[in-house]
Amino acid sequence: MIDFQKIIQDIHASMSNIEVRGKIASYIPELAFIDKKKLGIHLIDQEGNNYFTGDSKEAFSIQSISKVLSLAMAFPIMGDNLWKRVDVEPSGDPFNHLSLLELENGIPRNPLINAGALVIADILVSNLENPKEDFLNYVRNIANDQTINFDKKIAYSEKETGFKNYAAANLLKSYGNIKNKVDDVLDFYFHQCSLQMSCKQLVNAFYIFMNKGMCQLNKSYLTVKQTKRINAIMLTCGFYDEAGEFAFEVGLPGKSGVGGGIVALLPNKFCVTTWSPGLNQKGNSKLGMLALEQLTTKTGLSIF
Amino acid sequence: MIDFQKIIQDIHASMSNIEVRGKIASYIPELAFIDKKKLGIHLIDQEGNNYFTGDSKEAFSIQSISKVLSLAMAFPIMGDNLWKRVDVEPSGDPFNHLSLLELENGIPRNPLINAGALVIADILVSNLENPKEDFLNYVRNIANDQTINFDKKIAYSEKETGFKNYAAANLLKSYGNIKNKVDDVLDFYFHQCSLQMSCKQLVNAFYIFMNKGMCQLNKSYLTVKQTKRINAIMLTCGFYDEAGEFAFEVGLPGKSGVGGGIVALLPNKFCVTTWSPGLNQKGNSKLGMLALEQLTTKTGLSIF
Amino acid sequence: MIDFQKIIQDIHASMSNIEVRGKIASYIPELAFIDKKKLGIHLIDQEGNNYFTGDSKEAFSIQSISKVLSLAMAFPIMGDNLWKRVDVEPSGDPFNHLSLLELENGIPRNPLINAGALVIADILVSNLENPKEDFLNYVRNIANDQTINFDKKIAYSEKETGFKNYAAANLLKSYGNIKNKVDDVLDFYFHQCSLQMSCKQLVNAFYIFMNKGMCQLNKSYLTVKQTKRINAIMLTCGFYDEAGEFAFEVGLPGKSGVGGGIVALLPNKFCVTTWSPGLNQKGNSKLGMLALEQLTTKTGLSIF
Amino acid sequence: MIDFQKIIQDIHASMSNIEVRGKIASYIPELAFIDKKKLGIHLIDQEGNNYFTGDSKEAFSIQSISKVLSLAMAFPIMGDNLWKRVDVEPSGDPFNHLSLLELENGIPRNPLINAGALVIADILVSNLENPKEDFLNYVRNIANDQTINFDKKIAYSEKETGFKNYAAANLLKSYGNIKNKVDDVLDFYFHQCSLQMSCKQLVNAFYIFMNKGMCQLNKSYLTVKQTKRINAIMLTCGFYDEAGEFAFEVGLPGKSGVGGGIVALLPNKFCVTTWSPGLNQKGNSKLGMLALEQLTTKTGLSIF
Repeated sequence: MIDFQKIIQDIHASMSNIEVRGKIASYIPELAFIDKKKLGIHLIDQEGNNYFTGDSKEAFSIQSISKVLSLAMAFPIMGDNLWKRVDVEPSGDPFNHLSLLELENGIPRNPLINAGALVIADILVSNLENPKEDFLNYVRNIANDQTINFDKKIAYSEKETGFKNYAAANLLKSYGNIKNKVDDVLDFYFHQCSLQMSCKQLVNAFYIFMNKGMCQLNKSYLTVKQTKRINAIMLTCGFYDEAGEFAFEVGLPGKSGVGGGIVALLPNKFCVTTWSPGLNQKGNSKLGMLALEQLTTKTGLSIF
Repeated sequence: MIDFQKIIQDIHASMSNIEVRGKIASYIPELAFIDKKKLGIHLIDQEGNNYFTGDSKEAFSIQSISKVLSLAMAFPIMGDNLWKRVDVEPSGDPFNHLSLLELENGIPRNPLINAGALVIADILVSNLENPKEDFLNYVRNIANDQTINFDKKIAYSEKETGFKNYAAANLLKSYGNIKNKVDDVLDFYFHQCSLQMSCKQLVNAFYIFMNKGMCQLNKSYLTVKQTKRINAIMLTCGFYDEAGEFAFEVGLPGKSGVGGGIVALLPNKFCVTTWSPGLNQKGNSKLGMLALEQLTTKTGLSIF
Repeated sequence: MIDFQKIIQDIHASMSNIEVRGKIASYIPELAFIDKKKLGIHLIDQEGNNYFTGDSKEAFSIQSISKVLSLAMAFPIMGDNLWKRVDVEPSGDPFNHLSLLELENGIPRNPLINAGALVIADILVSNLENPKEDFLNYVRNIANDQTINFDKKIAYSEKETGFKNYAAANLLKSYGNIKNKVDDVLDFYFHQCSLQMSCKQLVNAFYIFMNKGMCQLNKSYLTVKQTKRINAIMLTCGFYDEAGEFAFEVGLPGKSGVGGGIVALLPNKFCVTTWSPGLNQKGNSKLGMLALEQLTTKTGLSIF
Repeated sequence: MIDFQKIIQDIHASMSNIEVRGKIASYIPELAFIDKKKLGIHLIDQEGNNYFTGDSKEAFSIQSISKVLSLAMAFPIMGDNLWKRVDVEPSGDPFNHLSLLELENGIPRNPLINAGALVIADILVSNLENPKEDFLNYVRNIANDQTINFDKKIAYSEKETGFKNYAAANLLKSYGNIKNKVDDVLDFYFHQCSLQMSCKQLVNAFYIFMNKGMCQLNKSYLTVKQTKRINAIMLTCGFYDEAGEFAFEVGLPGKSGVGGGIVALLPNKFCVTTWSPGLNQKGNSKLGMLALEQLTTKTGLSIF
């Protein structure tokens, strides 16, 4: 029997003295003020047992991790028609994301790069009555936690400075792959990314991906097939152009955000979130990557 | 002695029966209504003699031709500092213009592609008191014609549908190469492109590039060196990804617009404008290209 | 208990009447003569039980599937130094493989695209006494089958027509990432790709990737960690620019070849090979993809 | 009346003390031994008057300058059919030349990049009885100088190390745009590039491009139209990704080589060659670019 609590505590302890912790994301001004020393880990197994250590209950900006949640909400609405508007291939390319859009006629490579997440946001804006509220409620429900909220200041901060996202959204619009007004889609998208959640809240939300689409209250949000497919996309596309590296070093489906969070999961076994705000050169949490690599090494658990 | 009048009349006559005239630009809805049969040619020599035929006095939307005029206005303001914000190399690439921006850190390849013209527009917005009015007056003055005007409907039409330009401007903004508000720069840019000018008005305006920077009233707008350099840019970059083809077939510095106009010139000899709204696959006027090729063949005049 | 035999027979039966079977690879002239009707499936579980149907004992040209075998042989020789010469990221890009090499200074994206496999071939040529013989013996040993052999005619056929591989190898050489003579590396590479193996022989060889690096005779060829990493690379990079699609639809690490074979495996559970020579537009076996999708759907077994 | 002799002497004098002279090409080992202090200028006007200074009579490796000569030989053989196998657009792109080939189905952007010159070489190999000898005689004849010769050591040196050219030639072969054996085409190409010529010999050879296709003995090698077109290609494509810069700063059709030579010409006026082995970052002679910029500034002569 694996002693998860001891393992994550050991990992946490081994990391507390590491000086080189990467760089905090500063392109969103509001994110720049986070204490780089923060480090939290929270793991939940399929039976619902919780193991945690460090700053695991402190909320942070989940940023790109939200893309998995919006995808999970949009997939059942659209069914497989979703894949007419966004592909499922890794982007593979650090530099010219917009060029790929141009070469591929406005169909983003996958729903976890910004362009793809903007298409998903457009779908939700088209299909939800009160897009921001409805999405927030969806996240609260799957996590069974009504205290989760947007950080309006961060959403506003992105609105003022997120020029690359404006560029991507307008390019998608020029190809007809955004149906609503660009400003409406971006307003939704910046809110979605501004969700404040703790490690604990994130494992509760991502429990559905580990548990065949069902939350801890046994309500089903995704079919088994849909769950499997979102996990596959997380594995091949969840870490920007470091997706291969993460599969190689960690071997779990997962998703990172520039707020320093990483969620990863082993289907039918456990779901884990790490939070350490310093990022490596590819934009993924430096200590988070390391912690998860140690976790799969020490437990011997991975999908491979 | 070359009989320009006879030559352009012969060219015009030889073209009146051509059925396949290319496609009218339809991405700007307002442009789609032009009669494809329109064909005008106007040539002015350095001495100020005028030769013209066909619809040479009818104003049309000059679109990208305006990029040379805004460049001419911005160059003396900025001097060679201009070239820190935009390069002078051909883009060479039909597909991934935005990717080039990404690869080259927000420095557009040259001032005659859209991204480069947006940087020029930004410079004028920064440096002019009343940007749109001042630019309009500049064009009226170099052409010595106070009747030239914007077409507000076309400017508005672009504002509603020019998503690729919004994408490019936001991408430039993300690299810090647009200083003003994106909306202000685009408002200026869409107005600049909406200028309505006839073949006659265009040769009058472009006379300065043929005549060492001086207009017909002998007022100097550009130094000899600046004029030479703008001509060089027109030759290497004036025809999208058909610049080489135009240099090869015609051999004159020039600039085309999707409204179907082409201006070309032989320094110290003549300046000529053709107008035929049908475009070839590269977006240049089909009959205009042909007419200019015949003109340089029949006169034996080209820079090569 | 899953009845593998019934499941693969059902899949085989359901496919026998499919008319549209994709296109046989013809760029290697020798491959063009295969009967498109061929269809074989062979599955082996971790306990060594065999389940098979159709043309599962007929040898075919394994082509790119061999890249996993050469990687498996090179990895223990080089250890993690291997990853200085080749990366582990999906290439993501159907068109400009060579351009990626140019942009990334001669470091191929991963060992399963041609450029990466050429680097692996170079490593084996450097480290083996009799490269072709030693590699052949390695494959025979892990599969415990001394009848496996190269098809010299196919190797020769590639040598005469494989200009893209010559281009890639010379480009790698120009970056110093091939140490031996280009012709020696390509001679090895074309032989490696020309291996003739049946579905049965392939599952026997790939058994080591399903079984923590150990063959059926319990000899260890790879450490657990090395095995896990090769599986991760297969999942993210094993299907050209359809890797995401395969992870999404099938959810197993695997590798395809233009000869129409696909090997896939679920760690610690089973390894399966399908063979149907018709390829889809991305170059993967059309019926093979379908058969594996059905297998994971019917068994409910996948890594996700 | 312009005093060419004084002007080029002044330019030469002003440069003799410049310390920073760029880097000598070292990728061809044989070129690395040249004295960086060498500086020659030779100008010939249409009337045949010669003006020269410095090391203008010392032969050096003309390298890429030879591409204009092979093009001039191939053009009359193929006529306009030539342009089915190579385009006339600037490549515009420093990094991914081979990718452009992949995107554009094996049609090189223009005949002055390596891939295009390889296609021209293939055409000459197909059409000449004794390709190397016939080409050498062609150059000797247009320059009216039977002492011009290949440097076999340099040709051999390229053969041993020119892996990028092998890569390009094989890629072209894979698209069917090289008809002969790759090795035969490269053998011709490396010889062509190895031509040793002095500034004086180069202006004599390039006299035909300044003089409507006729050499100094009044023999015609190109039609007026062909000459004009080759000049257009030199202007738009003659300086790698610095073609726009050269047109902008100098304003003459020309061609550079990594041996440090530059030939430029003003149609019907003069032809000039500079030689200084140090190269700038784009691979063009640093002092040569500067000398030609000064020449056109001091004489006021350029095509613009």
